[in-house]
Amino acid sequence: MILTFGRIIEQLTAGIHTLDRTVDKLEPGCMETEVQGIVTAFSASQYVIEQAVALGANLIVTHEGVFFSHQDNREGLENDPVYKQKAELIASSRVGIYRFHDYLHRYTPDGVMKGLLRELEWEKYVTQHQPHVSILTIPTMEVREVAEYLKRQLQISYVRVAGKLSTSCCRVGILVGYRGSGATAIPLLEQESLDLIIAGEGPEWETPEYIRDAVHQGRNKALIMLGHAESEAPGMNYLADLLSLQFPELPIHFVKDEPVYQIV
Amino acid sequence: MILTFGRIIEQLTAGIHTLDRTVDKLEPGCMETEVQGIVTAFSASQYVIEQAVALGANLIVTHEGVFFSHQDNREGLENDPVYKQKAELIASSRVGIYRFHDYLHRYTPDGVMKGLLRELEWEKYVTQHQPHVSILTIPTMEVREVAEYLKRQLQISYVRVAGKLSTSCCRVGILVGYRGSGATAIPLLEQESLDLIIAGEGPEWETPEYIRDAVHQGRNKALIMLGHAESEAPGMNYLADLLSLQFPELPIHFVKDEPVYQIV
Repeated sequence: MILTFGRIIEQLTAGIHTLDRTVDKLEPGCMETEVQGIVTAFSASQYVIEQAVALGANLIVTHEGVFFSHQDNREGLENDPVYKQKAELIASSRVGIYRFHDYLHRYTPDGVMKGLLRELEWEKYVTQHQPHVSILTIPTMEVREVAEYLKRQLQISYVRVAGKLSTSCCRVGILVGYRGSGATAIPLLEQESLDLIIAGEGPEWETPEYIRDAVHQGRNKALIMLGHAESEAPGMNYLADLLSLQFPELPIHFVKDEPVYQIV
Repeated sequence: MILTFGRIIEQLTAGIHTLDRTVDKLEPGCMETEVQGIVTAFSASQYVIEQAVALGANLIVTHEGVFFSHQDNREGLENDPVYKQKAELIASSRVGIYRFHDYLHRYTPDGVMKGLLRELEWEKYVTQHQPHVSILTIPTMEVREVAEYLKRQLQISYVRVAGKLSTSCCRVGILVGYRGSGATAIPLLEQESLDLIIAGEGPEWETPEYIRDAVHQGRNKALIMLGHAESEAPGMNYLADLLSLQFPELPIHFVKDEPVYQIV
């Protein structure tokens, strides 16, 4: 049986309630094209596309948008040389690109979360999966120790911490991607009696400012920001493994980009 | 003549076209209250409010929202202990708090930008002020040198850099606060032939991912993220000096908070 892009996407979205609005889409690409190989990545960067071509993969499954926008807004990019060169590479390499964001987040538990927990070897500590957060009870340790553990497990060179490094924590909430925003993260601290939130990204004037006030009031609350890609790339690594189990005849690779930021 | 909150706010907003929609407001506070002293700050944190009380100031002029939200959305905070303790401090200390965000950004040039440029001693390099960006031609230096200069001038311990540290730059765009978003920042690189963007904050999947691709394509483009507060607090320091000139009889202080994040 020929495996098509459509068959892969059917498998990726199987069992998920159809979303009326979603950023997920195959573009460019045609459902009937035969899959030669798959690359999964946090972002379909120029490097990732080149790697896919080098690996003989003709389908890239990316979590974030190809052109630096969640809603794929390309206004102002039409004559941009970086945009044009990337668009030309995509066209000439004839890869299909499937943006796989919303549906993956609707796996039970969230597929991106599952990938992160797997990489942290923390699935055993989960006490509850909620749609946007997983609640964990970890062995009590200081925030400094948690930060070092996260860096080691995820192989990242830094994390950003709000609160005191000496804060003891055992009740932890993990939120991947941009769920570090105040509306999502702040209420959890009280409702779930969390000591620590570990998130991907969020506005700096929201959750970390709350933590600042909480600490100044003498409360043991802390926040570790991993970085957006750092929190979600493990999910795309997990997805590559999942696809490899489902389609053992296909070459399937997770491609990891360098961190987008370095600290100076 | 008695100086009231209303008189201060009248002065702060003088000559600015009235905005139909704005987050700026005096809350709590009464226009008729006599000003004893003013504290300006990036954020009216618990610490800043305590400092204002200690300094005998009864009016705090804050750039960001008091309760961790740009639109002052307090949903989910009603029973939050951090929120309640902060609200009680504000009520018992009887300070007035004036959120001064939109109008300050509409100064010509943007008051927040002016404060940052002053602290950087880079006003002399400005070639054009646009509403959301200032374009500079600085003496050619490497991104690494710019990063070190920014840290020294702003007295901050780190910046985040996308791109190569060895990139030479002389055409620089500066965007304060959350203007590091893709829609605002990316088109400038081409339109203004910028080598480097220096911004406060922005989504990680937008501008830095563009820079990643640009660099991978062999282009000399770079981005330095200062941090939101790091980019805007100098504007509130500048504002304190401006108010001191306008109201020399009043005690007026800029209060600086610790950085909200530390790097581990």
